[in-house]
Amino acid sequence: MKNQVEEFNEYRQKMNEKILGDNNKIIKRIFNLDTNAFTAGALDVKTKELLGLVASTVLRCDDCIKYHLETSYKEGLSKEEVMEALSIATLVGGTIVIPHLRRAYEFWEELEAPQPPKGE
Amino acid sequence: MKNQVEEFNEYRQKMNEKILGDNNKIIKRIFNLDTNAFTAGALDVKTKELLGLVASTVLRCDDCIKYHLETSYKEGLSKEEVMEALSIATLVGGTIVIPHLRRAYEFWEELEAPQPPKGE
Amino acid sequence: MKNQVEEFNEYRQKMNEKILGDNNKIIKRIFNLDTNAFTAGALDVKTKELLGLVASTVLRCDDCIKYHLETSYKEGLSKEEVMEALSIATLVGGTIVIPHLRRAYEFWEELEAPQPPKGE
Amino acid sequence: MKNQVEEFNEYRQKMNEKILGDNNKIIKRIFNLDTNAFTAGALDVKTKELLGLVASTVLRCDDCIKYHLETSYKEGLSKEEVMEALSIATLVGGTIVIPHLRRAYEFWEELEAPQPPKGE
Amino acid sequence: MKNQVEEFNEYRQKMNEKILGDNNKIIKRIFNLDTNAFTAGALDVKTKELLGLVASTVLRCDDCIKYHLETSYKEGLSKEEVMEALSIATLVGGTIVIPHLRRAYEFWEELEAPQPPKGE
Amino acid sequence: MKNQVEEFNEYRQKMNEKILGDNNKIIKRIFNLDTNAFTAGALDVKTKELLGLVASTVLRCDDCIKYHLETSYKEGLSKEEVMEALSIATLVGGTIVIPHLRRAYEFWEELEAPQPPKGE
Repeated sequence: MKNQVEEFNEYRQKMNEKILGDNNKIIKRIFNLDTNAFTAGALDVKTKELLGLVASTVLRCDDCIKYHLETSYKEGLSKEEVMEALSIATLVGGTIVIPHLRRAYEFWEELEAPQPPKGE
Repeated sequence: MKNQVEEFNEYRQKMNEKILGDNNKIIKRIFNLDTNAFTAGALDVKTKELLGLVASTVLRCDDCIKYHLETSYKEGLSKEEVMEALSIATLVGGTIVIPHLRRAYEFWEELEAPQPPKGE
Repeated sequence: MKNQVEEFNEYRQKMNEKILGDNNKIIKRIFNLDTNAFTAGALDVKTKELLGLVASTVLRCDDCIKYHLETSYKEGLSKEEVMEALSIATLVGGTIVIPHLRRAYEFWEELEAPQPPKGE
Repeated sequence: MKNQVEEFNEYRQKMNEKILGDNNKIIKRIFNLDTNAFTAGALDVKTKELLGLVASTVLRCDDCIKYHLETSYKEGLSKEEVMEALSIATLVGGTIVIPHLRRAYEFWEELEAPQPPKGE
Repeated sequence: MKNQVEEFNEYRQKMNEKILGDNNKIIKRIFNLDTNAFTAGALDVKTKELLGLVASTVLRCDDCIKYHLETSYKEGLSKEEVMEALSIATLVGGTIVIPHLRRAYEFWEELEAPQPPKGE
Repeated sequence: MKNQVEEFNEYRQKMNEKILGDNNKIIKRIFNLDTNAFTAGALDVKTKELLGLVASTVLRCDDCIKYHLETSYKEGLSKEEVMEALSIATLVGGTIVIPHLRRAYEFWEELEAPQPPKGE
């Protein structure tokens, strides 16, 4: 059985490929910018991921939150750091953010869960 | 089989406990404020619940709507009162609110539905 | 010298007349609905004004806040009641609401200020 | 098995009937306005549908997007036209719109998919 | 004396030059995309300007509205067409859009006002 | 003559004092939380200020942006770091953010401008 993380990534990748295959130049370039904006510059990658996470959280976009949670996790950010970023997002964005916080917390647990052996 | 109301409450409670168990002070205090803000003061509890419902509706947060529908229901607000509050939310927030109105209506129906005997 | 309340009302009225004079049916009917929605029904006028105020505040629309502050004031709502409604809006909508709270507070002060004798 | 388009339409129709049956005048009139606003006037129906689609997309309302995708499809708008409208929405609304773009793309594919013979 | 249109354009141009002079690649490319997205493609320029106008209006960004009102005006869109687009934005976005509609109407009037002879 | 920074701070401080003097407990505690949330924890103060700045920018709150620009400036963040954070906000939040970017840029320039000798 697939977990949330895998499901999210599969759907995301499948649809991104279709959308990019369609050759709308504006969309292609926005996707491209999205990759570039989160590479190291004056700010390091970890900080940028937290910025992306907080932006996604106050704008209350679950899929965007999941995406930045996963990249934050892969970059080695700790749960404490991520939760602190999310607490700022909840304060700035209001209690309306709390349902997204619940789903974010659940997704982070799945990211930290030991991976089952391959061969599903 | 669980209905929507039970499912919503179980997930909400389970995740809230995990989040609060994590001991992030800012988040704990926001949760705490959320409880205090809806107790009687210059305004009574019913009015405050309707304010919470309308705020949730124009901000288009389904889970927040469900939460305030349930507390409104428990406080004895009538369907007419709740629908009138939701009609103001739809006017102020625009037709973009309508899909949330449909889900709110469905949730209210479940709140009003006779409870099956325990022992699911 | 005109105060904020007069300025707001004059501009609002002048532009509303122009817009309605233009005879766009959809806009005319939305304006019309706006008047009807805040008349007494299952909920009384005071409660509805507070609902309109909170909706305007979490959506962070200064002019809408001013409008509902003035109608709330005229309906006899007290400063404590209005501030309690605004505190719920700030909690649900987040600290991002605070700058609007400052302007709302200032506008309410002008509503309560003794009117200078006519003849400006 | 029902596809996404059918499911969406059935739920939408069922709940709309319930809501309208409830006789809240403000809501009834908003629903009514919604029908009128998208009929031909100074702008033709196709243009209006694209306006509704872009408004729904930047406000990130999946159900509203689906609704306008279906009406756009029925009005004979091409995939290229729809995608171009969605690319403007993504640029104006930001990358936060991308998850909605993925779901919109998938829904459009179902609209274009050959219909199975009736008799499910 | 400068009118609103001139003031808006001068500030906009002055600040855009500073921002672009600063050489942040992501921002430069977003500005660039913004120019490309509104050129003719599957949809003509007029339609795209209306899409940009409606997106700006439901997201309640006065400066973005002004920008698209001016380009709409220059492209030869009529007041009726523009008002019809704005009426859809007001319906979809709710009465919260009305204050922006008032300012949009005023700006359009200035766009249509006869230009004073140069030499201010 | 006062510059933008001074004007902003004076109005902010004056109104905050009035609001806090009013003794609404919920509002007092939200203000209090706002101070606590940005102190050093798992994340350092600079990172938190950038998170506050990005949250304010994507939610398009000019006063909140100004506040975090000033604290970022005082914490010693460089223009390049701040602009990089703002570029992420513009990408995630869309071109609708650009007018706020222009005003943010202007405010930052005033923060960096040499202070005139006291004695206004």
